Parts: sequence; C-alpha cells; structure tokens
Amino acid sequence: MPARSVLLAAASVLSACQQSYFALHVGKARLKYKVTPPAVSGSPEFERMFRAQQNCVEFYPIFLVALWMAGWYFNQVFATCLGLVYIYARHQYFWGYSEAAKKRITGFRLSLGCLALLTVLGALGIANSFLDEYLDLNVVKKLRHF
Amino acid sequence: MPARSVLLAAASVLSACQQSYFALHVGKARLKYKVTPPAVSGSPEFERMFRAQQNCVEFYPIFLVALWMAGWYFNQVFATCLGLVYIYARHQYFWGYSEAAKKRITGFRLSLGCLALLTVLGALGIANSFLDEYLDLNVVKKLRHF
Amino acid sequence: MPARSVLLAAASVLSACQQSYFALHVGKARLKYKVTPPAVSGSPEFERMFRAQQNCVEFYPIFLVALWMAGWYFNQVFATCLGLVYIYARHQYFWGYSEAAKKRITGFRLSLGCLALLTVLGALGIANSFLDEYLDLNVVKKLRHF
Repeated sequence: MPARSVLLAAASVLSACQQSYFALHVGKARLKYKVTPPAVSGSPEFERMFRAQQNCVEFYPIFLVALWMAGWYFNQVFATCLGLVYIYARHQYFWGYSEAAKKRITGFRLSLGCLALLTVLGALGIANSFLDEYLDLNVVKKLRHF
Repeated sequence: MPARSVLLAAASVLSACQQSYFALHVGKARLKYKVTPPAVSGSPEFERMFRAQQNCVEFYPIFLVALWMAGWYFNQVFATCLGLVYIYARHQYFWGYSEAAKKRITGFRLSLGCLALLTVLGALGIANSFLDEYLDLNVVKKLRHF
Repeated sequence: MPARSVLLAAASVLSACQQSYFALHVGKARLKYKVTPPAVSGSPEFERMFRAQQNCVEFYPIFLVALWMAGWYFNQVFATCLGLVYIYARHQYFWGYSEAAKKRITGFRLSLGCLALLTVLGALGIANSFLDEYLDLNVVKKLRHF
C-alpha cells in the first residue's frame, strides 16, 4: 500500500459505508411508499429521497479523487478532516432533502465548499510535485528559505 | 505503482469491462425496444435493464473503495477473490433483473455480502495500520506472540 | 503517494472539475427550464442535458480505473494523453447532446475509443507485471533481448 494513506483509507471506507447506507434507505423507502421496482416515481417522498441519493452517487467519485489527491499531494491530516466534514454535509443533505426539497440547500453548499477546497489543495500539491519532478524546482523549499 | 496491487488492478480492469458491457447492453436495448434518447422509460423490459445497470453504477465506486482498501490493508489475494465473486454476483443480478424484477434478489444479496465482507476486512486492516503507525502498537504481531 | 503518478493525478483532478462543471450546468438548466427538484423531466432541453450528465457519471469511475491502471502498469505519459483526449471527447459529447440527441454520437464514440485503448494498455501492463511477479517471467525484457 502507498505510504501515508491510512487516514485517507479510513475516510474512504467511512464514506463508502455512508453511500451503502443511503442506498439501503432508498430500498426501505421503496417498501414504505410502495414503489415497486423498476419504477422510480409515484410518491413525492420517495422521489425526494431517491434524488438525494442519486446526487450523492454523482458526486462520490469526484469526492474520492479530490480526497486522495489532496491527501497524497498536499497534506493527509488536513484532507481527511475536510473529508469528514464532507461526509457530515452529505448526511445533512440527504436527510434534509428527504424531508423537503428546500432543506437540501445547507448541506449541499457545505459539501460543495469542502469539495472545492479539497480540489484547490490537491491542484496546488500536484503543481508543486510537477515542478519538482519535471523542472527540478521545489517551490515549498524556496518559500521556506525566504 | 504501489507494491502488491497487481491482482487488485486485474480485478478492477475486469469490473470496469463489466460496467462498460452493461452500459452497452442498455444502449442495445434502446434500439430493440425503441426507446429514443433522452427517454428512459416506455418499455418495461428496457426499464428493468436500465434500472439494473443504474444500480450497478451506484455501487461501483463503493466496490472499488472496498476492494482496494481490503487489498492494501488486509490481504490482496483474499480481497481479489471476493472481488471476483462480486463481479459474478453483479452478472447474475443484471441478467436476473433484465428477465424479471423478482430474479434480481439472489445476485443482489450475494453482491451485498461480498461488499460487507470486503468493508469489514478493509476496516480491520486500516485499524491495525492506524494503531501501528500512530500508537506504535502492532496488534497482529502481539497476537502471533501469544 | 505512489511514485510516477503526478500526471495521472493532474488528469484526474481536471476530470473531477469537469464532472462538477457538468453537474452545476444541469443545476442551472433546472432554473432556466423551470424543472423544480426532485423532478427530472418536463422540458426536452433539460432532459437531454440531464441524460448527457448521467452518462458521464456512469462512465466516470470506469475512466478513472482505466486511466490509473494504464498509467501505473503501462506508461504514465501515454495514459495521461489519452485521458486528456477522453476529457475533450466528454466535453464534445455533453454540449452536443445538450443541443440535439443526434449530436452526441461523435463525442461518445471518441470517448469509448479512448476508454477501450486505455483498458487494453492497462490489461497488457497488468499481464506483464503479473507474469514478472508470480512466474518470474519478464516479457518486456525478453522482447528487448531479441
């Protein structure tokens, strides 16, 4: 396994559990609101929960990429903390959306903020590694020198 | 590339091929049942196959996380075997669901079982690595000592 | 972080940004065509854009697996170039599909071509690593010897 990844791995497994938990709740909602598969509509409560889960599914690979890139190329501890905030935001989003379409906003904004920050940190770290590897220019070292 | 990953890599490429194969079959079903894009409904046969593929898509990143974490932090060979069983379960699920909504159950349960086992093994391995790295406590070594 | 991954990491972050960009455009289209969540139908323009994004979401984890496996086990620079072509193809696909269902074909075919090539290269590289690690048979070295 690659070095310095154990915290990222823990956050990833936690988020994978959360995704399964959302999927299983949608399955339960199918029984509760009598939406027989393969249908995905019929009850507004079910539709909201289903759409909440679909949105989490859409963003999940983006989150994983942002988390691991920020963790590998910037800082593992910081990326993991942001990852945990993202997981919390997605929890808020899912249950908010399940209640009412308006209540999805807070969690969604928080999750987008985490994602944006992780992406920026990852991009900075990658740019630094790139300069170091291909142009032999270590920006972090130079900044420390000043 | 990280060490001890070649079997995980092979299982991942195989599962990626399976996902593309499902997506292409849904495309074929569009032509067969005359469901013009962007529509996703109109024929119950198409809807079942489409929903089967969507469910596979939802679980795919969860599967990848569980596979690699179990493989990196627990045991590569064991994780790969479970991964192959998962791929087989998804095959059963997809074709079962395409035939009738009831026939999806067996494959789905088997796939969830594999996923749960991979997640538990990954979590155990990560916990062990965490204790070893941050608290200098190697549980596996201590257990072997007794 | 694993060695020889900085270009793959850059391509991954770029593609993650593209995915978020597609998702945000679908959100904007919701406002423009007055499709209130959780609905996903009602306006053909919105439906086309939504379906375009959903297709990108479906293929995104497959792309990530193919990119990293080809990059780790075959050649990083070559895999990254193919990854960039894939990102371009997805751009073409998304905006083509948003305009008219027929205009999605070109971008889709190009993206499938990149994906197929990445998968084949990844599979070749993995096969070579497997033979080297488990059967102590380095095919690339032998080929160079001749």
